Amino acid sequence: MTGSHLDSVLDGGAFDGPLGVVSALAAVDQLRAEGFQPSVPVGVGAFVEEEGSRFGMPCLGSRVAAGVLAPSKALALQDRTGVTLAEALSEAGVDPAGVGPSPLLERMGTFVELHVEQGRALTAPVGVASSIWPHGRFRFTFGGEANHAGTTLMEDRHDPMLTYAMTALAANKQARLAGARATFGRLSVEPNGTNAVPSQVTAWLDARAASTEILDKLLEAITRQAVERAERDGTTVEVTAESVSPVVDFPAGLRDRLAGVLDGAPVLPTGAGHDAGVFSDAGIPTAMLFVRNPTGISHSPAEHAEMDDCLAGVDALATVLKDLAK
Amino acid sequence: MTGSHLDSVLDGGAFDGPLGVVSALAAVDQLRAEGFQPSVPVGVGAFVEEEGSRFGMPCLGSRVAAGVLAPSKALALQDRTGVTLAEALSEAGVDPAGVGPSPLLERMGTFVELHVEQGRALTAPVGVASSIWPHGRFRFTFGGEANHAGTTLMEDRHDPMLTYAMTALAANKQARLAGARATFGRLSVEPNGTNAVPSQVTAWLDARAASTEILDKLLEAITRQAVERAERDGTTVEVTAESVSPVVDFPAGLRDRLAGVLDGAPVLPTGAGHDAGVFSDAGIPTAMLFVRNPTGISHSPAEHAEMDDCLAGVDALATVLKDLAK
Repeated sequence: MTGSHLDSVLDGGAFDGPLGVVSALAAVDQLRAEGFQPSVPVGVGAFVEEEGSRFGMPCLGSRVAAGVLAPSKALALQDRTGVTLAEALSEAGVDPAGVGPSPLLERMGTFVELHVEQGRALTAPVGVASSIWPHGRFRFTFGGEANHAGTTLMEDRHDPMLTYAMTALAANKQARLAGARATFGRLSVEPNGTNAVPSQVTAWLDARAASTEILDKLLEAITRQAVERAERDGTTVEVTAESVSPVVDFPAGLRDRLAGVLDGAPVLPTGAGHDAGVFSDAGIPTAMLFVRNPTGISHSPAEHAEMDDCLAGVDALATVLKDLAK
Repeated sequence: MTGSHLDSVLDGGAFDGPLGVVSALAAVDQLRAEGFQPSVPVGVGAFVEEEGSRFGMPCLGSRVAAGVLAPSKALALQDRTGVTLAEALSEAGVDPAGVGPSPLLERMGTFVELHVEQGRALTAPVGVASSIWPHGRFRFTFGGEANHAGTTLMEDRHDPMLTYAMTALAANKQARLAGARATFGRLSVEPNGTNAVPSQVTAWLDARAASTEILDKLLEAITRQAVERAERDGTTVEVTAESVSPVVDFPAGLRDRLAGVLDGAPVLPTGAGHDAGVFSDAGIPTAMLFVRNPTGISHSPAEHAEMDDCLAGVDALATVLKDLAK
């Protein structure tokens, strides 16, 4: 087993998604090769839809497993084409009736997640997480009046694209002022025709900040500028919170214990959401290890970690597991 | 026949697309009911894809029929899902080999198009077109760097959404300054994920102005502002003209003859493209009749014309046909 799992890591070089699981398996391989006998069972977990890219709910798998998202709500979630999670599972040969809290989690004493760092904050090969920033996903619906792009006088228009455009620029400016993050990366335009003033623009704001207070103020400032511009454009704007996660402070004792056995590895917060945040919120003692990201690029095909750092991550996880299961 | 065609008009109340054909048939019904004997044949034509909404080429049917768009080029056009016109025709049971210039057009002495007016410029029930504004469709491709929306510092980003947003606002401002029209109504974002800074935003600019010179200057001003912002954002911008139509001046003699037999109906230009423009460019004597649009709303489900005005339009077309075919 050892060879194959490590080869998979060597082929990949990043820890997100399936490669995180492979790295955890490689760490278990290493413990076996050393003949380590754990005092408690060591398990490797994989959770679907951590990005929420298909069904719009980040950490979908871990939320259901931890019992913080009801199975009925999860199964009714729809993708962009209207397919529900229940339908997608059936299509893939999985019985939706089996979706629900995992009994395995009742036996879980400690959860440790290994992940590539997603900014440029970590300068050592491996680090330990202190906290996850509060994170909100907000749907901005800009309503206007569909009209002919050639014949409608500029001053007669109620163009929601203009209201959106100003709001996107405002979000960027307000995030800079607040030392926070705000991104409009997803958009849907109706009717999305070259020769038509749109009737509606729907845009999703991803906003994160060091505290819930800063996040709330950031959303407030962006919304205020959107509403002011909507008044000028004769359009409407409606803001809906699709998901808001509070700050996650990982338990300090566990965090310091990990940093200790890893010879004083640096401790740092992250702006990215993780399954570890869900488990920590659910009351399970949780920690996270990060592997250095030399460019800081993430959520992109250019995301990359050096091979030596990847192997240091596997080694760090094995060291931590040995300490926790000794 | 008369009853059924007029009923269709009464059901609809607008002249775009199929209803334009129905109104023309209603005018022919009226001539028949009056026992009018034309000296030359009177035909009714219907042309597909005048809006270019599926294959991106406005007036697709009339361009092919008039021989200004080669069948091979037309058949290779793709819709947004990659389906070619040739494939769509085959799917609908139409042989693509039959697509090409229409021999009927060689016999066409005069073409008259009846259309609802698409702004608020016409205050009488029926008017006659003087010209069609120059019209360009330009694809703006904004390139940046995909990245994580939570972990990437605002100052480290190369976000093409910001460059687009500023360009959309600039287009609106420049069009107002030039007394022209500029609209970004269609957008495509990659990867279009809530938690990702986009790698690319593609946006289509619809621009129209009273003269080619004004249109050129408008595009130049918008492009200049886009490029300046791209420099600040560390992004790229590329502008591609997908279609540019020059001004269409309908023949003055024919235009005045129509206005004359219609008791001095008002003569006015339009910012909207029409099949009539294609035929006029192809050297066929062409004229257009407009029916009043009380709200000016067009390219929207709210487009509307009063029933009395619709019937006045049918009557005007019958009057014009009688004069041209007497």
